[in-house]
Amino acid sequence: MDGIKVSVITIGDELLIGQVIDTNSAWIAQELNKIGVWVHRRLAVGDARNEIWKALDDESAVSNVILITGGLGPTADDITKPLLCEYFGGKMIMDEATLKHITYLFTEVFKRPLPLLESNRRQALVPDVATVLKNEVGTAPNMLFEKDGKIFISMPGVPHEMKAAMNNHVLPLLQQRFQLPYIGHRTLLTAGIGESFLAERIKGFESSLPSNIKLAYLPNYGMVRLRLTAQGGQAETEKILNEKFAILKEEVKDVLAVDEDIPFEVLLGRLLRRHNKTVSTAESCTGGYIAHLITSIAGSSDYFKGSAVSYSNSIKENVLQVNNETLASVGAVSEETVKEMVSGVLKVMETDYAVAVSGIMGPGGGSDDKPVGTVWIAVGNAQKIVTKRMHFRFDRKRNIELTAVNALYLLCRFVETNS
Amino acid sequence: MDGIKVSVITIGDELLIGQVIDTNSAWIAQELNKIGVWVHRRLAVGDARNEIWKALDDESAVSNVILITGGLGPTADDITKPLLCEYFGGKMIMDEATLKHITYLFTEVFKRPLPLLESNRRQALVPDVATVLKNEVGTAPNMLFEKDGKIFISMPGVPHEMKAAMNNHVLPLLQQRFQLPYIGHRTLLTAGIGESFLAERIKGFESSLPSNIKLAYLPNYGMVRLRLTAQGGQAETEKILNEKFAILKEEVKDVLAVDEDIPFEVLLGRLLRRHNKTVSTAESCTGGYIAHLITSIAGSSDYFKGSAVSYSNSIKENVLQVNNETLASVGAVSEETVKEMVSGVLKVMETDYAVAVSGIMGPGGGSDDKPVGTVWIAVGNAQKIVTKRMHFRFDRKRNIELTAVNALYLLCRFVETNS
Repeated sequence: MDGIKVSVITIGDELLIGQVIDTNSAWIAQELNKIGVWVHRRLAVGDARNEIWKALDDESAVSNVILITGGLGPTADDITKPLLCEYFGGKMIMDEATLKHITYLFTEVFKRPLPLLESNRRQALVPDVATVLKNEVGTAPNMLFEKDGKIFISMPGVPHEMKAAMNNHVLPLLQQRFQLPYIGHRTLLTAGIGESFLAERIKGFESSLPSNIKLAYLPNYGMVRLRLTAQGGQAETEKILNEKFAILKEEVKDVLAVDEDIPFEVLLGRLLRRHNKTVSTAESCTGGYIAHLITSIAGSSDYFKGSAVSYSNSIKENVLQVNNETLASVGAVSEETVKEMVSGVLKVMETDYAVAVSGIMGPGGGSDDKPVGTVWIAVGNAQKIVTKRMHFRFDRKRNIELTAVNALYLLCRFVETNS
Repeated sequence: MDGIKVSVITIGDELLIGQVIDTNSAWIAQELNKIGVWVHRRLAVGDARNEIWKALDDESAVSNVILITGGLGPTADDITKPLLCEYFGGKMIMDEATLKHITYLFTEVFKRPLPLLESNRRQALVPDVATVLKNEVGTAPNMLFEKDGKIFISMPGVPHEMKAAMNNHVLPLLQQRFQLPYIGHRTLLTAGIGESFLAERIKGFESSLPSNIKLAYLPNYGMVRLRLTAQGGQAETEKILNEKFAILKEEVKDVLAVDEDIPFEVLLGRLLRRHNKTVSTAESCTGGYIAHLITSIAGSSDYFKGSAVSYSNSIKENVLQVNNETLASVGAVSEETVKEMVSGVLKVMETDYAVAVSGIMGPGGGSDDKPVGTVWIAVGNAQKIVTKRMHFRFDRKRNIELTAVNALYLLCRFVETNS
């Protein structure tokens, strides 16, 4: 079998009323992409019989692999399993291997007293037309159905159970069943140039691309990511992709922030490891978000020592030794304050580098002089401190994210050029 | 016109390769829900002509309102606008009002020198069959199309531009055109009971629900949220919903964590305001994430003073005055250490309450004695400190989230019972 077309169906009212953000779909798409599969359509429907039925009809009409997540819990709002049974014309039977696995999980892992509840036992009921794909980390079995040459796989919506199903079953199965093309991406991030100016600058480059390479613009956080995507035989595709990417890098070199699809916290970790240096943060308006980003990277304890989140001025004075007079004269949101915060946190945390931020994230707290969105960032070491004033025009959440990303960007640049 | 059915189509390759997580759809669904509209289907397709065309065909066959986001940028990868023009049988014309608005944005807001780039001018080209809905915060105009009694609205994918379009145009328009039913939700969160045990306990309640009320189980962070959703005339629906919700609360009262759909950081803020108290955090393994959650709430500077993110033991000693002997004898991940961290941060930050966490988030750093996922949490005030040991079995990101959510939950309970 070759020529794969994948649809992803996510089932659950919680997605359609917006109570839950769908992160599963992005993860599934990324993993499929790595093995050369492009998700073709993604559909979300509610926990309603006719909607799910129609989704199965619609997606199997246009795709030959239909991945289904959600709707497999033990409770009465989950109707997917009996519906799948009916859709594929089977009857429900007790799967002894699954029952044994559920019993094992309840007794050995969850440490619950036996006997199992009826609803737990019912999770081991599967359509006799399904092939059970073991759910190693949960109680709801994954199920494979095949009909008219199409493959349907139903997985739980719980993210870590879905991930286990993808890694243990779905990805290997697709690699075995299909001749998969190579899909390559190269991504770079620019800073300090708008999307349309960037497009104007590289329009010659864009029109020079062969038909199997696409260029995409992904503006975010006031920066623009550029992604080249190519499809074809691996060797030739990689070669031309690398050539084109080198040309693109050259064309944007004065605004190039990073030439990979990695966040700045990963780049920062690499730079610090390379130079065997440490970092700390002094955060006012970001409230710990920069430290959170840095420590989201495994192994960051090797180079990150700590953070002083100084939301109130008393902490800026007592912990970070910011001058009382500075705060009184120019205020907490000022160049002088963030410089003193860097000096203070370098000393308290005994690190080689530090970053400090202070700003007004909104919606309240702004003034004519310092409107909401005003931010001062300082990065430095014992010898030198560099500052930047920024102004963001978004809501609180996004202002915090923008401040953190820009602070990490400035910190990376400082470490790169001062080590 | 009555009987609304809404489909949301999101356009963009970045969604299908998983480079971007779709947060727009959840927001759109939430806002529609508030005015009594249920999203019926949600479809994501790539920047490909025939996929977008088919999506328009498919969704207009089942829905009468089709909301489209994405694909409107100034760059060549965005093909949506000319496609919509062709789909609705129009031709592209220059919209002078939009051009004036774009010129205003570039000169007055973005402070760019004139003349506009050709790509910026092109954003003012719209199909003559579209009604332009002004994009107050960006350059890509929103467009309304009507065909065979169906409404199509195309919005940019940039979140704050989409939000402005929804608030300023889409929501008012739908309220004007349709007789909208009332949809009510009541949500509570339980802690300390598994989904299936909870379902077993309240199965009598669930079977007592009238057909216009649905119960949903939403497990997350090791807790289970229960949501009642009712539809009908507002007065009678609210009455029965409130009655049923009161019964449900009573049935789960021993495991009830919060009886609203709010995160713990919001509950914490309310409790602290009510008692006019302050809080600080001392974070090791969460790396500032608890402080970030607390400060994500506008106005949190009224009760949050700061955080000491003590990733390295030297910070635990120097900033938080954790005993060197404690660290040497029982280690950083221990009940004694988190108790001393609470005491220390209470003093340094001069707050009424504090929370401290220390644990091993993985993937490295575990031992036989303290495997990955081991976490100690302490919450307290000057009089009393309460601790809890937890064990999580997930990846680093999720272990951090689980630790933070459980720490905030314990903190809320402590503030509730000790003030």
